[in-house]
Amino acid sequence: MASPVRGRAGGPGRRPLDRAKDQAITAAVVDVLARLGHSGFTMDEVALAAGVGKAAIYRRWSSKTDLLVSYTEGSIEGTLDLADTGSLRTDLVALLGSAAAHFNGPAGRANRALLSAVHDDPVLAAAYHAGPVAQWGDAFRQVFDRAVRRGEICPDAASSVAGEAGAAILVQRWLLHGAHIDEALVADVVDDVVLPLLRDRGHP
Amino acid sequence: MASPVRGRAGGPGRRPLDRAKDQAITAAVVDVLARLGHSGFTMDEVALAAGVGKAAIYRRWSSKTDLLVSYTEGSIEGTLDLADTGSLRTDLVALLGSAAAHFNGPAGRANRALLSAVHDDPVLAAAYHAGPVAQWGDAFRQVFDRAVRRGEICPDAASSVAGEAGAAILVQRWLLHGAHIDEALVADVVDDVVLPLLRDRGHP
Repeated sequence: MASPVRGRAGGPGRRPLDRAKDQAITAAVVDVLARLGHSGFTMDEVALAAGVGKAAIYRRWSSKTDLLVSYTEGSIEGTLDLADTGSLRTDLVALLGSAAAHFNGPAGRANRALLSAVHDDPVLAAAYHAGPVAQWGDAFRQVFDRAVRRGEICPDAASSVAGEAGAAILVQRWLLHGAHIDEALVADVVDDVVLPLLRDRGHP
Repeated sequence: MASPVRGRAGGPGRRPLDRAKDQAITAAVVDVLARLGHSGFTMDEVALAAGVGKAAIYRRWSSKTDLLVSYTEGSIEGTLDLADTGSLRTDLVALLGSAAAHFNGPAGRANRALLSAVHDDPVLAAAYHAGPVAQWGDAFRQVFDRAVRRGEICPDAASSVAGEAGAAILVQRWLLHGAHIDEALVADVVDDVVLPLLRDRGHP
């Protein structure tokens, strides 16, 4: 995760020592969620993993919920590769490859742990939908919109349910199978699923 | 869920009163998981929801883990519609429609709650993979194999990653979005994703 937790005191004017603590706490949130799951997530564990006192955490976030919501909203910020590579195929390989790196790592395990609590907690659900779910959808829309502007696919292809297929296969492998997602799978998903679906609809 | 929890004493020779208790306990497992999640799942809550004493549960399953594993393995048995309707399209609408009914209901919420604990618990993970994950994959293989025998698609189409796309879109909506899955989505997934992918590969 590239960007730190969006705390109440995380602005650019912060002292270097405070920014280092922000980053240590963010890393600790990932570590505790990935190791202990949502049910094992406590401020004590976060303080221990971050090597800071609990007071340092409470100065930034008023409660465990506040910390979790703040982390959740920004949990995939900066993880998805959205560089314009000049073609739909290479854009998709870059985007799905960066998603795979997230799913395979500790932040992916933390994300899966968060998700286990999302459907029973309206506050966390709102943060999860406003953060990672929205950003996941937006990333594909950006890549598809560029392909439409390049004339590679038609607008209706990008907005149909077919546009969900590639992302969904990775998510199913990650959430249902708990599987490691490798480069070969990413290439197969791009070449055997996303491109045939969108190009066929784009050029009937 | 059509079949009861596979307990140590669930055979056909059981007395009607015992079978009624088996079924009450299975229904209570679904209810407690769906309402309280995996972290709230206790033998006390199951006994309360089933209207039986805890001793009745422990006579059938030696521990909470034993009960959860037994339930998990059989948790989607009988839920998926695998009737041979004569065509790939109508087979897929029936199969995905029955999956949607599961995802949308209390057993789907129970399944999602189980899944939250699966990746951190090797015993539960083994049961989840041997049960629902394997049955979910087998169901699509059955439907695709029938379509291959009818000459509707080629064998390589059915075994490629493209065969995962339809199932994955439903799973992503269910697990990531927490969304209700309606008949219109099932039809779109069949007509805009699965059939174009498999028929195009089948008839190049």
